[in-house]
Amino acid sequence: MLSTMQDVPLTVTRILVHGVLVHGTSQITTWTGEGEPQRRSFREAGTRAVQLANALRDDLGVTGDERVATLMWNNAEHVEAYFAIPSMGAVLHTLNLRLPADQLVFIVNHAADRVVIVNGSLLPLLAPLLPHLPTVEHVVVSGPGDRSLLDGANVRVHEYEELIAGKPTTYDWPEIDERQAAAMCYTSGTTGDPKGVVYSHRSIYLHSMQVNMAQSMGLTDRDTSLVVVPQFHVNAWGLPHATFMTGINMLMPDRFLQPGPLAEMIESEKPTHAAAVPTIWQGLLTELRAKPRDVSSLTQVTIGGSACPPSLMEAFDDLGMRVCHAWGMTETSPLGTIARPPAHAVGTDEEFGYRLTQGRFPASVEARLTGPGGERLPWDGESAGELEVRGPWIAGAYYGGQGAEPLRPADKFSEDGWLKTGDVGTISADGFLTLTDRAKDVIKSGGEWISSVDLENALMSHPDVAEAAVVAVPDEKWGERPLATVVMKAGSTADFETLRGFLAEEGKIAKWQLPERWTIIESVPKTSVGKFDKKVLRRQYAEGELDVTKL
Amino acid sequence: MLSTMQDVPLTVTRILVHGVLVHGTSQITTWTGEGEPQRRSFREAGTRAVQLANALRDDLGVTGDERVATLMWNNAEHVEAYFAIPSMGAVLHTLNLRLPADQLVFIVNHAADRVVIVNGSLLPLLAPLLPHLPTVEHVVVSGPGDRSLLDGANVRVHEYEELIAGKPTTYDWPEIDERQAAAMCYTSGTTGDPKGVVYSHRSIYLHSMQVNMAQSMGLTDRDTSLVVVPQFHVNAWGLPHATFMTGINMLMPDRFLQPGPLAEMIESEKPTHAAAVPTIWQGLLTELRAKPRDVSSLTQVTIGGSACPPSLMEAFDDLGMRVCHAWGMTETSPLGTIARPPAHAVGTDEEFGYRLTQGRFPASVEARLTGPGGERLPWDGESAGELEVRGPWIAGAYYGGQGAEPLRPADKFSEDGWLKTGDVGTISADGFLTLTDRAKDVIKSGGEWISSVDLENALMSHPDVAEAAVVAVPDEKWGERPLATVVMKAGSTADFETLRGFLAEEGKIAKWQLPERWTIIESVPKTSVGKFDKKVLRRQYAEGELDVTKL
Repeated sequence: MLSTMQDVPLTVTRILVHGVLVHGTSQITTWTGEGEPQRRSFREAGTRAVQLANALRDDLGVTGDERVATLMWNNAEHVEAYFAIPSMGAVLHTLNLRLPADQLVFIVNHAADRVVIVNGSLLPLLAPLLPHLPTVEHVVVSGPGDRSLLDGANVRVHEYEELIAGKPTTYDWPEIDERQAAAMCYTSGTTGDPKGVVYSHRSIYLHSMQVNMAQSMGLTDRDTSLVVVPQFHVNAWGLPHATFMTGINMLMPDRFLQPGPLAEMIESEKPTHAAAVPTIWQGLLTELRAKPRDVSSLTQVTIGGSACPPSLMEAFDDLGMRVCHAWGMTETSPLGTIARPPAHAVGTDEEFGYRLTQGRFPASVEARLTGPGGERLPWDGESAGELEVRGPWIAGAYYGGQGAEPLRPADKFSEDGWLKTGDVGTISADGFLTLTDRAKDVIKSGGEWISSVDLENALMSHPDVAEAAVVAVPDEKWGERPLATVVMKAGSTADFETLRGFLAEEGKIAKWQLPERWTIIESVPKTSVGKFDKKVLRRQYAEGELDVTKL
Repeated sequence: MLSTMQDVPLTVTRILVHGVLVHGTSQITTWTGEGEPQRRSFREAGTRAVQLANALRDDLGVTGDERVATLMWNNAEHVEAYFAIPSMGAVLHTLNLRLPADQLVFIVNHAADRVVIVNGSLLPLLAPLLPHLPTVEHVVVSGPGDRSLLDGANVRVHEYEELIAGKPTTYDWPEIDERQAAAMCYTSGTTGDPKGVVYSHRSIYLHSMQVNMAQSMGLTDRDTSLVVVPQFHVNAWGLPHATFMTGINMLMPDRFLQPGPLAEMIESEKPTHAAAVPTIWQGLLTELRAKPRDVSSLTQVTIGGSACPPSLMEAFDDLGMRVCHAWGMTETSPLGTIARPPAHAVGTDEEFGYRLTQGRFPASVEARLTGPGGERLPWDGESAGELEVRGPWIAGAYYGGQGAEPLRPADKFSEDGWLKTGDVGTISADGFLTLTDRAKDVIKSGGEWISSVDLENALMSHPDVAEAAVVAVPDEKWGERPLATVVMKAGSTADFETLRGFLAEEGKIAKWQLPERWTIIESVPKTSVGKFDKKVLRRQYAEGELDVTKL
């Protein structure tokens, strides 16, 4: 029996129209580094988005579901592109300006971007790539920067402001099926080529509603959100869409992501909320300690990307900024969990523990844990397994390229369509996720899992240890066993037996999990973003480059 | 270009499973009138819902999308039915126990209900109807009440608790298309037969997300909501679904809707939120004035159904209960608008004015105003037209009966599928709706509209007037003109000229809107729910029963 409800699609267009019409006076404030920030109302930005859509269609010939790329900081123009491109039926492709050049080239070619909108300040990054980007015909430049860098490039160059000036302020928006593509973002996997995640109008709409739910970020038009998380990174966690849905004001840092300017914009613009990764926020803390400012407006900070160290969380509590963990990934739009403590824990000793978890799943994100043998594990806060998730804003495949089938690699998607997150952790009986490791780093020993992260944290709590990385190495009897690679502090005296004994003390680590293989290294190899690069250690071990002691 | 998102349907089943799994310790507290209230966790209620689904299928043979009716108060068992029935693929049909017997009979027969779950206390209402309900085969009785009233009825009678006892606590829920029917509710129109509105899984899911958005009711698991608005009235404004989505506790009054018990349950159970119609809330105020109680927990009250008089709103402000207007109807699930003042008005003189409006449209509810000539009117806070709405939880038709096409009467649905609400009002430039009249009561005079309500309010503000109703009567020159029917206070001396002059004073009413036709009546005829029954006045005028003076 069919319902008698209207069949109205959930689209980005609807969010745009609503934001302009009902929340027209809400503001996007973009930091300019000097003098007054740029201030633009939702009505102005939305109207300019309509003009941009007209320009893209009429002047640049964008039709159908062509991809239009952005290589931009967080600013009002980027928000305009966020709404113009999907609303006209095209696909917004945000380019991650932190990626190595070869990956950027791969991504633009794979998506077959024909137009790139770029901030002038990023032309030094884009210009050298253009000879390798045969699909790109148009480059639209916004904001300050040296245009001469584009001299000789085989593209048509447009000034953003000139392009949209005088364009019509209405557009006959196409009827869009909510399952059609609206935006895409490539993941920078550590192995293989980047993979494209394609968001639908439906997934963006539902995700925006979720972000605005009181139990998630729960902001209203009384709030101003400092959107530090980049717009090229999973749609800035959905904030530009969520804000247009309910009139939340946005404060955009543009390229001024250093602790000094961030402290300055908080003091002068008084945001109530911020969204950022821990490293940025750690830098802000150092800045505020060196030079105190009035940051009292900022009471809620959503932290994701990686876990916030407890000490950092406490330091911000002291400043009156309450940090709230969230977990997600490019494949999850990204809101997968958010760590609002349950009612019974509020004001008790349990509360901080809940805040240190990755958070609780909302209704739209189903979760399950898969153990080493493929078995389903209980939600008991003890059983650690790989997290798999399902939901209307969770990826079920990767973009296969124009005309090609979507990619569903078996290590990323289960046979029944769930996303294998590659994260290992536990889920409590009340639905709180605690991540303990990455699946690729976990040590699979005799059908059980050993967390490399737990071993590393325990090792690094020893006073003689500067750094420690634990990787899985092949073992005849157990399949895999942990190898402890340790950087000792200068002048330290502890030997491996002592360290092993330290790990065993007071039940820090179960006996069967203790490493037999140990080695001293000069420093732990790191990736470009500063994470431990365990691939290198595994290769060094395999090639016999490490001097390993077996206890 | 299709997205790579998973195709996961939005279903009531998902809300149920989530509520049990993640918010299992949240509570449904049902008032029992004496002693301890009944307390049931979401895990318990959800598990009982699963058992109910098993019983309905295995013992009562409910299959496919059969309708299962409830004739129940707000209580935990009704919540169980709310989740069991849609999750198994059947359709929950809530029966309005305030309807006249003939309408109830029509509704049950039209929906072809085969099962009725009834509270024992409502058997005096149901039993006499059963001989007229040939499709009903099973009656399931829950809670106290005289079962002997069912003696001799041609139905199988079941005890709710016996039926579910020992039933399996798992159910292999069917895969449901989100556009399938989940629940239905008939509107009691003042003319013609009641019309069935059929909610989909999708519409209920989206509506629940909206209710939980910070800018709407915005409750979390730290809240307890006193759900006074009946579950048979537009799904209790979506609260049972919204609460299971985020773990909001529910306080259910069962049949104890009198001011005394309401005051008592607020004092002892300390809800933070309540949802009710103004008449119930007016009664509570009188009670609290006569017998003060500690109601300080209750800080937010959502009022809908009709506008809350300003004096009542102020009186509750004084008690610390902040009343928030919402507007909707059976056809809108019901959340159409909610009156959270915009940020710029908070703490200013404008704030109260915003709170008196019906509220602001959320992103999912598109709105437009249609004038007397069918023209679209601007959102200027001045132009009054009939409100038409569109959205994923707005009806686009009525249920036509089993196997029949849906009904789309032209006075209720526009050609392009929008719902004509029958409400007349204005929309401000920032999207706030102010209703001024019902479309059927507005006076269409020379291509312009005159609000009967504005005239009535102005008349009733005269010290000599006890009550006044204004209706449209035919006029040769203008099409329609207002007829003022006035109930004078005892001993009053004002004549019609005086009253007309009073209306004209200080621009209360525009000159061209002033009534020429006046009559004194003993009392204004009322409907069963206490509203002015203008049909009667129009008929009396048409039949020459009124003594009309023309000025």
